[in-house]
Amino acid sequence: MTELRQALHRLGVETYGQGLVEITKPIKDWLSHLDIEDGLLTLFCRHTSASLLIQENADPDVCRDLEAFFARIAPEDGNLYVHNAEGPDDMPAHIRAALTQTQLSIPLHGGKLLLGTWQGVYLFEHRRAPHHREVVLHLIGE
Amino acid sequence: MTELRQALHRLGVETYGQGLVEITKPIKDWLSHLDIEDGLLTLFCRHTSASLLIQENADPDVCRDLEAFFARIAPEDGNLYVHNAEGPDDMPAHIRAALTQTQLSIPLHGGKLLLGTWQGVYLFEHRRAPHHREVVLHLIGE
Amino acid sequence: MTELRQALHRLGVETYGQGLVEITKPIKDWLSHLDIEDGLLTLFCRHTSASLLIQENADPDVCRDLEAFFARIAPEDGNLYVHNAEGPDDMPAHIRAALTQTQLSIPLHGGKLLLGTWQGVYLFEHRRAPHHREVVLHLIGE
Repeated sequence: MTELRQALHRLGVETYGQGLVEITKPIKDWLSHLDIEDGLLTLFCRHTSASLLIQENADPDVCRDLEAFFARIAPEDGNLYVHNAEGPDDMPAHIRAALTQTQLSIPLHGGKLLLGTWQGVYLFEHRRAPHHREVVLHLIGE
Repeated sequence: MTELRQALHRLGVETYGQGLVEITKPIKDWLSHLDIEDGLLTLFCRHTSASLLIQENADPDVCRDLEAFFARIAPEDGNLYVHNAEGPDDMPAHIRAALTQTQLSIPLHGGKLLLGTWQGVYLFEHRRAPHHREVVLHLIGE
Repeated sequence: MTELRQALHRLGVETYGQGLVEITKPIKDWLSHLDIEDGLLTLFCRHTSASLLIQENADPDVCRDLEAFFARIAPEDGNLYVHNAEGPDDMPAHIRAALTQTQLSIPLHGGKLLLGTWQGVYLFEHRRAPHHREVVLHLIGE
């Protein structure tokens, strides 16, 4: 007989301007209290100017180069956008969010996330100002 | 004992040329008939020239600026592509779909999708002609 | 009473330089042995320089044009990146992975994936050298 069950958590994340904030550890901390060995973890970002990304967590230069790439591809240039009322970084933020992920699902096996050796989970802040962000963690498993 | 169960629905969406069509309401309408309080909703777009996106639903200019961004980044220019037989907007449509989402999952709690305050769910049409699109809705929950 | 259960598999994929490798068939082969009719399949790529993509599998030119697009948008140009130690194709690979998918979920109904008529599932290799890649397949269903 199946013993599948669900768990839900709202993870608060503080950001400090544009760039990637690693959230792998708080996610693993939450999972470690659940006594669920095998299942599927889903992360959902409740914002349209921040997003989620799985990236290399070995060399911090990778995060800096990613930030620079997105600044190039979606520049702060008022001539490019109609939606400028919320600041020059708001429309680029929506574009950057559209190009990355609002949601990520990661399988869990033997109590461990099946991330690759170099993979870390990041919240990607796209606004210049610090923000309090919320990521919903949903787990289904047994 | 768990009472987890599944539900499936095929949502038809009419589009009218390139741009975003909000589908938050028909999704919520379907959920409201299911008597499932907590779970995970997955949306799957069955096309390679349309896609899914969660974006701000407060200011319609955001949708227009997003459409303009994707038109700039993947222009209709036959010199850039080998695959031109299905029309000048077909290969740009595949690129735009690759840069956004074919699938989205959103946690459900207390009978409500855990979307953020400003988040709406959109089908993103990438072809110039109107199309009938199909989005599969899959819910697992209790 | 629900009979929901889970299955997990690690699919090895050989790649031969930058480009798309279709993995629809090995995925369906695995599903065909499971005796699960309805559910949700999740694919997770355990790498930061390869990713997942659902694209048209009718005309191989689409795959070539996609590859060319990503080479244009994230060029191998050492002046653009700080992270160059792992080769000129490494940072572009991370960018290409960020712009596509690390994870995909596809509903299953009547024993069949609900892919659209022209949709195929691809592993997208972003490095020049051949690699052995691993995609985790997770199925929950009944």
